[in-house]
Amino acid sequence: MDSAPLDNIRIILSHPTHPGNIGAAARAMKTMGITQLFLVNPKRFPDREASDRSAGAQDVLERATVCASLNEALTGTVLAAAVTARHRDLAAPTYVLRAAASQLIHTAKEKTIALVFGTEMSGLTNEEVDKCQLLVSIPSDPGFRSLNLAAAVQLVSYELRMAALKDNDELTPQLNLARLEEVELLYTHLEQCLIKLEFLDPQNPRRLMTRMRRLFARTALEVEEVAIWRGILAAIQRKVD
Amino acid sequence: MDSAPLDNIRIILSHPTHPGNIGAAARAMKTMGITQLFLVNPKRFPDREASDRSAGAQDVLERATVCASLNEALTGTVLAAAVTARHRDLAAPTYVLRAAASQLIHTAKEKTIALVFGTEMSGLTNEEVDKCQLLVSIPSDPGFRSLNLAAAVQLVSYELRMAALKDNDELTPQLNLARLEEVELLYTHLEQCLIKLEFLDPQNPRRLMTRMRRLFARTALEVEEVAIWRGILAAIQRKVD
Repeated sequence: MDSAPLDNIRIILSHPTHPGNIGAAARAMKTMGITQLFLVNPKRFPDREASDRSAGAQDVLERATVCASLNEALTGTVLAAAVTARHRDLAAPTYVLRAAASQLIHTAKEKTIALVFGTEMSGLTNEEVDKCQLLVSIPSDPGFRSLNLAAAVQLVSYELRMAALKDNDELTPQLNLARLEEVELLYTHLEQCLIKLEFLDPQNPRRLMTRMRRLFARTALEVEEVAIWRGILAAIQRKVD
Repeated sequence: MDSAPLDNIRIILSHPTHPGNIGAAARAMKTMGITQLFLVNPKRFPDREASDRSAGAQDVLERATVCASLNEALTGTVLAAAVTARHRDLAAPTYVLRAAASQLIHTAKEKTIALVFGTEMSGLTNEEVDKCQLLVSIPSDPGFRSLNLAAAVQLVSYELRMAALKDNDELTPQLNLARLEEVELLYTHLEQCLIKLEFLDPQNPRRLMTRMRRLFARTALEVEEVAIWRGILAAIQRKVD
């Protein structure tokens, strides 16, 4: 993956109260390949608790930029998105996180963008939201929208990474599939065995082999699996003969 | 949204060490509308720190089920997915979180499914992974995969919620899936048979049963298929005795 879009993303935490959340946010970002952390007036920073909770993301904390105002943290960005759970009247347009992420990544290919998170208890002020061009809403249960700050950073960073990944199915398992004629030979062998075991009555086969085919068809057998089953069937024939 | 799929999801934390993570995981689940928490041998639970970190999700902690083993926690589920960052050889097929979520939600419309998370430092053991039919991988930066436990629960819960929100009216065939404990009994029976056939050497089992589990896990066995295989195995035992 081209890392450019993720390198052009700033995570801005405005007035974070708990140093533990700063550390956890740094860790959350880094797991998704985002490392630019900006802190606007953090209550306590640097702090031992932030370092502890960052786990291996101490480098993100060390390179974090501490600012006196949101304006300062936004300097150099072309687009700022406010992450918010509350509904805002008359504010910038609101996009659901996933849709917002692909828009944001598109811009981040060329320019620096920012995601702005408010303070733990009360979120972003209206004045802060006004400095952003769009609002990002994280889908959550209407009965319990209380996302932890670092958890929100985790979800946003994840969706940005997912949007940046071109090919999402990189981890689809590679199976060494058997050829159909090998699978057909397996079915024939299985049928002979089931007859020998008197489990299948050739005079009244019912739908047994159809069911077996259906089961193995869902699996898509690998070469080695066909070989194992041929071995098992041969062992049955030796013992029953 | 029909809440049935989310109500049919168990989040299982195996051997969690830090009570704070249990609380944060409960909060993460609840923000996404998932409330069934199972704990296998938690180091400290209930605990003040878990309650503190749960914020408004104390109810999820109070209704959490504490189990002595993963088998116990899986009882009653038809599908278990292991959430893992490490690459596993010869294990169940691995799916990227987003793809896995839509599969899992499909099953959760009718039956109970489980997402299994390992202990903080070392993740799931191979034995635990073997009890799962699929592996779920969370896309993360190859240079820093160190997701916090509660953060992983947050991402998984979010993707499950997103998948549940989608209108999944595709024509996926309806399978009458067997319960996991029935499938476990089938594996035990199969193993006995393979030993009796002298195909499996108990002194040197190699990875044969793991391969068998992997094959059948890809299939997701139906109730009737398990019954047929039990019948075949019984026929083998009669003939070989």
